[in-house]
Amino acid sequence: MSAELTEPGGGVRLHVEATLGEGARVVPSDGQAHYLLHVMRAKAGDRLRLFNGRDGEWRARLVEAGKRACVLECEIQTAPQREVPDLWLVFAPIKKTPADFLAQKATELGVRLLQPVLTHRTIVRRVNVERLRANAIEAAEQAGRVSVPEVREPVDLPRLLADWPNGRRLLFCDEAGAAPAIADALDEAPAGPWAILTGPEGGFDPAERAALRAKPFVVPASLGQRILRADTAALAALAVWQSVKGDWR
Amino acid sequence: MSAELTEPGGGVRLHVEATLGEGARVVPSDGQAHYLLHVMRAKAGDRLRLFNGRDGEWRARLVEAGKRACVLECEIQTAPQREVPDLWLVFAPIKKTPADFLAQKATELGVRLLQPVLTHRTIVRRVNVERLRANAIEAAEQAGRVSVPEVREPVDLPRLLADWPNGRRLLFCDEAGAAPAIADALDEAPAGPWAILTGPEGGFDPAERAALRAKPFVVPASLGQRILRADTAALAALAVWQSVKGDWR
Repeated sequence: MSAELTEPGGGVRLHVEATLGEGARVVPSDGQAHYLLHVMRAKAGDRLRLFNGRDGEWRARLVEAGKRACVLECEIQTAPQREVPDLWLVFAPIKKTPADFLAQKATELGVRLLQPVLTHRTIVRRVNVERLRANAIEAAEQAGRVSVPEVREPVDLPRLLADWPNGRRLLFCDEAGAAPAIADALDEAPAGPWAILTGPEGGFDPAERAALRAKPFVVPASLGQRILRADTAALAALAVWQSVKGDWR
Repeated sequence: MSAELTEPGGGVRLHVEATLGEGARVVPSDGQAHYLLHVMRAKAGDRLRLFNGRDGEWRARLVEAGKRACVLECEIQTAPQREVPDLWLVFAPIKKTPADFLAQKATELGVRLLQPVLTHRTIVRRVNVERLRANAIEAAEQAGRVSVPEVREPVDLPRLLADWPNGRRLLFCDEAGAAPAIADALDEAPAGPWAILTGPEGGFDPAERAALRAKPFVVPASLGQRILRADTAALAALAVWQSVKGDWR
């Protein structure tokens, strides 16, 4: 009997690279085939959903199932392609587990791009971009997104600021100085493209803070007086941004 | 040479049960003594900070150091006792790792009380309250809080609603129905004591949703159209609440 493949969290969704469209055939990756055939025990005729970040979401049917590989065929489009709000997260790298977590949560919270930035006090200087991407893809599959955030290679803070795109505001979560409350800072600022910047454990150093505050596109904001871990600050700022300027309103 | 004990994230702070005051002597727990003597390699004369949720924060000096135990003596108060905003988090239990994480992050984000609630679709029905408390204490130490959130034993949703305290509003993060955007729901609602309610993976069932919406103290709110994991929804709602109604403003 054929069925819709479901997990406790909802129906099975996979991100693929292939073009999707009516009758299009998709060969999932080895890992995806293993998951479908051996974890989900999928059989020919079972259905799931696919997206690739370009063609919306498609219901697909498993049409050929071997021992290690399978073929899926697109049937109908179940959601159009659409983008999340134009929000980037620029963050100083953190340890492996919090970084996994941050990539997942930021994807759920609807960021379009993840940009690691290296600062003076950044202790973790190696960034596993492929691992961040894998976390973002998995989270996009589970969050019902039809897009996956782009994950960029790390850049130094001065380079980031020098190359900053015209018209994009940068919300600077400044734990060290007097800054307007985040809700007020966002209420008073214009709509359009934004990014959120969070520092390393230990924060930005005074020279970095001065450089940031001198930029016309930087909007400083405060997340209160309690000490937040770097990943907590990033998620909190993303949630407040979505609630004020994003698609939660 | 005596020194202030510091970790990468800042100075060492410990939560203790003992009364704190000038000259008060405190014997830390076995685990804390091990941490001080063998992880931090503290010596007599080294300083750290203590809090107990009642007497503010005190700088203390290690005055006796043995192999397995030590004695600390309070010197001066470094912060007065103060409370976080009157915000509770009422949440359906989740798996161990997300639950640890939720207790930590909710503590950083300044909740006063953590209340597990059992719902029809709650899959995880065993709640390790002691483990949640341990996570909350560790997070309070690192967040610079002088209070630790109370962690209550789980209750069923009907019991929770029947015993709900007068005057406290309950922000119901409703993923299934039409509800005002969270920022608008909070903007229009009064200040005072609040709680945030988040459901299990799979959400509340229709009867629960109807029961919640029938209560005059319930304020329904939406966190957008993407599917958020239970822990993400809780953290997002806490952050938005602090930004609008809490002490981030």
